[in-house]
Amino acid sequence: MLNVGVIGYGYWGPNLVRNFNESGVAKVVSVSDMNAERLALVAQRYPRTRTTNDHRDLLAATDIDAVIIATPVATHFDLALASLQAGKHVFLEKPLTQTTQQALRLVDEAEKRGLTLMVDHTFLFTAAVGKMRELVRSGELGDIYYYDSVRVNLGLFQPDINVIWDLAVHDLAIMNYVFDRTPVAVSATGMGHIPGKPADIAYLSLFFEDHMMAHIHINWLSPVKIRRSMIGGSKKMLVYDDLEPSEKVKIYDKGITLSDRQSLYDSLVSYRVGDMHAPHLDTHEALNLEANYFYECIDKKQRPFNDGQAGMAVVRILEAATLSMKEKGCTIELDRVGL
Amino acid sequence: MLNVGVIGYGYWGPNLVRNFNESGVAKVVSVSDMNAERLALVAQRYPRTRTTNDHRDLLAATDIDAVIIATPVATHFDLALASLQAGKHVFLEKPLTQTTQQALRLVDEAEKRGLTLMVDHTFLFTAAVGKMRELVRSGELGDIYYYDSVRVNLGLFQPDINVIWDLAVHDLAIMNYVFDRTPVAVSATGMGHIPGKPADIAYLSLFFEDHMMAHIHINWLSPVKIRRSMIGGSKKMLVYDDLEPSEKVKIYDKGITLSDRQSLYDSLVSYRVGDMHAPHLDTHEALNLEANYFYECIDKKQRPFNDGQAGMAVVRILEAATLSMKEKGCTIELDRVGL
Amino acid sequence: MLNVGVIGYGYWGPNLVRNFNESGVAKVVSVSDMNAERLALVAQRYPRTRTTNDHRDLLAATDIDAVIIATPVATHFDLALASLQAGKHVFLEKPLTQTTQQALRLVDEAEKRGLTLMVDHTFLFTAAVGKMRELVRSGELGDIYYYDSVRVNLGLFQPDINVIWDLAVHDLAIMNYVFDRTPVAVSATGMGHIPGKPADIAYLSLFFEDHMMAHIHINWLSPVKIRRSMIGGSKKMLVYDDLEPSEKVKIYDKGITLSDRQSLYDSLVSYRVGDMHAPHLDTHEALNLEANYFYECIDKKQRPFNDGQAGMAVVRILEAATLSMKEKGCTIELDRVGL
Amino acid sequence: MLNVGVIGYGYWGPNLVRNFNESGVAKVVSVSDMNAERLALVAQRYPRTRTTNDHRDLLAATDIDAVIIATPVATHFDLALASLQAGKHVFLEKPLTQTTQQALRLVDEAEKRGLTLMVDHTFLFTAAVGKMRELVRSGELGDIYYYDSVRVNLGLFQPDINVIWDLAVHDLAIMNYVFDRTPVAVSATGMGHIPGKPADIAYLSLFFEDHMMAHIHINWLSPVKIRRSMIGGSKKMLVYDDLEPSEKVKIYDKGITLSDRQSLYDSLVSYRVGDMHAPHLDTHEALNLEANYFYECIDKKQRPFNDGQAGMAVVRILEAATLSMKEKGCTIELDRVGL
Repeated sequence: MLNVGVIGYGYWGPNLVRNFNESGVAKVVSVSDMNAERLALVAQRYPRTRTTNDHRDLLAATDIDAVIIATPVATHFDLALASLQAGKHVFLEKPLTQTTQQALRLVDEAEKRGLTLMVDHTFLFTAAVGKMRELVRSGELGDIYYYDSVRVNLGLFQPDINVIWDLAVHDLAIMNYVFDRTPVAVSATGMGHIPGKPADIAYLSLFFEDHMMAHIHINWLSPVKIRRSMIGGSKKMLVYDDLEPSEKVKIYDKGITLSDRQSLYDSLVSYRVGDMHAPHLDTHEALNLEANYFYECIDKKQRPFNDGQAGMAVVRILEAATLSMKEKGCTIELDRVGL
Repeated sequence: MLNVGVIGYGYWGPNLVRNFNESGVAKVVSVSDMNAERLALVAQRYPRTRTTNDHRDLLAATDIDAVIIATPVATHFDLALASLQAGKHVFLEKPLTQTTQQALRLVDEAEKRGLTLMVDHTFLFTAAVGKMRELVRSGELGDIYYYDSVRVNLGLFQPDINVIWDLAVHDLAIMNYVFDRTPVAVSATGMGHIPGKPADIAYLSLFFEDHMMAHIHINWLSPVKIRRSMIGGSKKMLVYDDLEPSEKVKIYDKGITLSDRQSLYDSLVSYRVGDMHAPHLDTHEALNLEANYFYECIDKKQRPFNDGQAGMAVVRILEAATLSMKEKGCTIELDRVGL
Repeated sequence: MLNVGVIGYGYWGPNLVRNFNESGVAKVVSVSDMNAERLALVAQRYPRTRTTNDHRDLLAATDIDAVIIATPVATHFDLALASLQAGKHVFLEKPLTQTTQQALRLVDEAEKRGLTLMVDHTFLFTAAVGKMRELVRSGELGDIYYYDSVRVNLGLFQPDINVIWDLAVHDLAIMNYVFDRTPVAVSATGMGHIPGKPADIAYLSLFFEDHMMAHIHINWLSPVKIRRSMIGGSKKMLVYDDLEPSEKVKIYDKGITLSDRQSLYDSLVSYRVGDMHAPHLDTHEALNLEANYFYECIDKKQRPFNDGQAGMAVVRILEAATLSMKEKGCTIELDRVGL
Repeated sequence: MLNVGVIGYGYWGPNLVRNFNESGVAKVVSVSDMNAERLALVAQRYPRTRTTNDHRDLLAATDIDAVIIATPVATHFDLALASLQAGKHVFLEKPLTQTTQQALRLVDEAEKRGLTLMVDHTFLFTAAVGKMRELVRSGELGDIYYYDSVRVNLGLFQPDINVIWDLAVHDLAIMNYVFDRTPVAVSATGMGHIPGKPADIAYLSLFFEDHMMAHIHINWLSPVKIRRSMIGGSKKMLVYDDLEPSEKVKIYDKGITLSDRQSLYDSLVSYRVGDMHAPHLDTHEALNLEANYFYECIDKKQRPFNDGQAGMAVVRILEAATLSMKEKGCTIELDRVGL
């Protein structure tokens, strides 16, 4: 059983507290938040959990093994570093940090101390994303041509980050996990429409070493909510619609056919249309699985696939994309970011 | 009554012939095509229409007032120029030409001879696009923040043009018409996946002089067909889904609210959610309206809104986008294209 | 090659003329209609086809082998009988006749003369309905529990028939074909809302000899158009949505599980949820196939599956349903109808 | 502040406990359930709430003002009667009782003792149903032609009731509330497919004194979940889709037009198609509002609209429908039920 302390009981904190408590492997013993009302809510719902407005109480507590950090991103680095230095395992909200440099520092600190550092890329624990990874790795889709994602809605403006850091972070984590590879360059465009506020619309094009390409489309000003990704392969293609109540992943036996028919053109491109298939997906709660996985990684001293390195890979792209967006789409090579 | 000759009876030609014949203002007197089977089809369907495999027969015919050109884009310039020089009005398939230079030459020729040059931007004649233009111009949507369009499907590869020239052309024509203004710069990314074939996926970001932005997402390798555009305004937003059998245009009374509430942050951004409204749209056939408009412009010596200039404005962006795509997204200023 | 005459060039007639002409096996040599404007349309579109306002010209014509009847249902019996008596094969619009008695008379006449009598149940020639029949017959769905169909829209009121005869006719034809069996009794409810006009809403419940049941829901006053049927089986279930542009038929690997677990209840019913599968369906035009099938049946002296008997089976249910509706749902045994 | 005891912590009980606790006007002081595991769950989530396996402890408790009953329907009558006799206000799950006679007995008992008896028709507290009632009462839809509802899914078989009592109960409560009137007769058909189990599919046709009609379509064996009701009126029509994340209620400005044009027919029926409108609906939790309303009715000695009479009106139709179903659709007059 893991004793955890939670820093931040705002939007996401309540989900974390509930899921860790119901995970069967962890218990939330203390929650800190700077807002007294939020702490009162904790007290009402969990009368046996300690509350404090000073996160340092958690770091000092000897009965706490791990710290969960669910605060604005600007505070991630300092809180995570202090937690690691206090000898706690750390479960950190996404995005991991504000810069690649900060991420690297956390990775090193965790490594040095033999502590588990996990970033909360919740989507990786859904059945849909697991199924996509399986389909890609098994070769069922063939060579991958593209990943294309639309993630838009009427969203709350974040005070300290632009829409890329708020929304694209999900797709980048999914993409890195599903394809087991990271892009080499990014071109991003975007714009802010509220004076003094960060970009609310953005488009990321991601290039890989071969002919694969990815595109992420994010928007805080969309009248409708869309959460749809497509993966195009040489053999099959899939659509993942996270808002579908069931059949979230649909696999299309469709593709391109090349023929060498005698004709005006050297080779003829046509397309092939076959069946569609929607595999049944479990409906477990992703965060519950993730809580169990956090415990398991600590217990077995096992490196999580969503570790600090994974979080840093995402932050590097976020950083590069923000830079490219300022330069109106000029491509940024990723190996030049964060040095 | 307008006597027209049609060059090219391939994919789109039959629609043109049928609609001009049924327009009530025009009659197709001759059709040319290099393929005998296609001509036989004309003969079967329209026993009274002349057929020929040499388009020059149409140019020489004294009973023909106007020529409709529905051939591959590579032939547009030569055929249109010859037609104008033969004193015929010209109705030309989109995209107008392969280069801005060619477009300019056609515009000048038509101008000099007092002939009507119209480019077939069919969407401009749909009730949905007309409604969008009306909503934008009346100010009902407020300041325009963005135009965002997704136009993807499993598409036939064109032999001589990439996906931008095939699909983005529609959105650019719609955009220029609806907003009555053109972008100043474009950043495009994209990629081809079939060796020896042009780009099959592309993404265009378009910048305007103010804080408006546009994005066009096109794909020949999508397992599902999507035709959806969104317009975000400071007062209202709309979604135009061309595949909806009815309610193609939905207007959302949603938006951003700025408050100056005393808070941690200088100003607070929240959002407003109101009713949704789908105006009834006529279901006339766009091409029939366009045929009537072509006649009317010739008859009244009136400049069409989809004239050579309009077609050239689109070609200029297509040219710039293709250039930007080759440079992996580097922004191209539009006033430097086609000089 | 079959020479056909068409009686009636109203709503459906043009589709019949076009499809028979393009079938490759038939030629429309003459069309009759009482309306001069409709005949003018024929003349314009098919300059070589004869036109007449007297259908008896068709019956007398020695170069006509078969007559296609596409007139209001009240005229079906007289026209079809006269056609058969003139020695012509007959292709008749649905519903076959106004009564079972009339249908029986036509069946006998065709039989006696060795002529082909076919009723136009177009849906039976779609790939979707063919696939459903195949799935039912192969046993893939298991025992059939129910057929349930919703067919509603804002429909034009027919002058001489109620909504059952206009819309339920499709479902009854599909049902009889897919399941290869007919119901034994029907209970129907419904109502008219426009004074002096027939019922515009109706609901049919159909009982079979075993535990299978069917329900058909039809409505001329629905603000939205729905065309959706479900088939529930002991092994699998399917949904057929005719308005889906692709994936019209979806097969769900879902069902009921009985366990004999020791419990408060004798046996426990739970359900099983598996994959969904949408087979690729051809997109040929059904009417074209049907025209070819009509020719083939005549040519090979083969009994069509959509023959007079099939049309009569549907008419019998329509008659019974109308009767039950007048009695507010009281069940009518089908073997007592039409005697 | 109302002190409540809850009998039954099964499927719905947890929602009741949570909502009454969070209502601000009530506190759950005790929960009874015959299952120890369920009680353990209560103890874990609400350490300060008493638990017992004997519901009589709640009836005897002097600090309990009202009893909430969330047990199988077979137990409703006995538990509710005992609660009223113990002087407690009663909030009872739907359906109120198993028979109209039982319902009448409860209504009388509550009346006699001046106690509040409320049946949990939760849907009446949703914004969607409230909006429908408002539209009907204001006359915006015109004369009402029909109410038509489809409520199907792969559902858990109830041990003691058929699908009508499980699902149609919702529509009947909504219908009675929205239209402020009850039907006069019912015709129902249906069937069970699992040996020894109650009907799993049923169809109810409901007749009113005028030309209004209602139909309810319920099914435990549907592969897809549908929750859609339509209301047809002489002026407008609406569709209520409860599974839509937003725009649950859509109002169509569509209808029938009668013209007296000189024609073959006495009067001509055509239809009118106008705009569609989806009013913004609040997203409050219905059960929370209902808890507040329960408190308010008790506090102000006010008769709830969802009182015992309302519950009885629904039970009467359920009883009649089950009876009609056994007689294969024969119409049952409602005023002859429950005497």
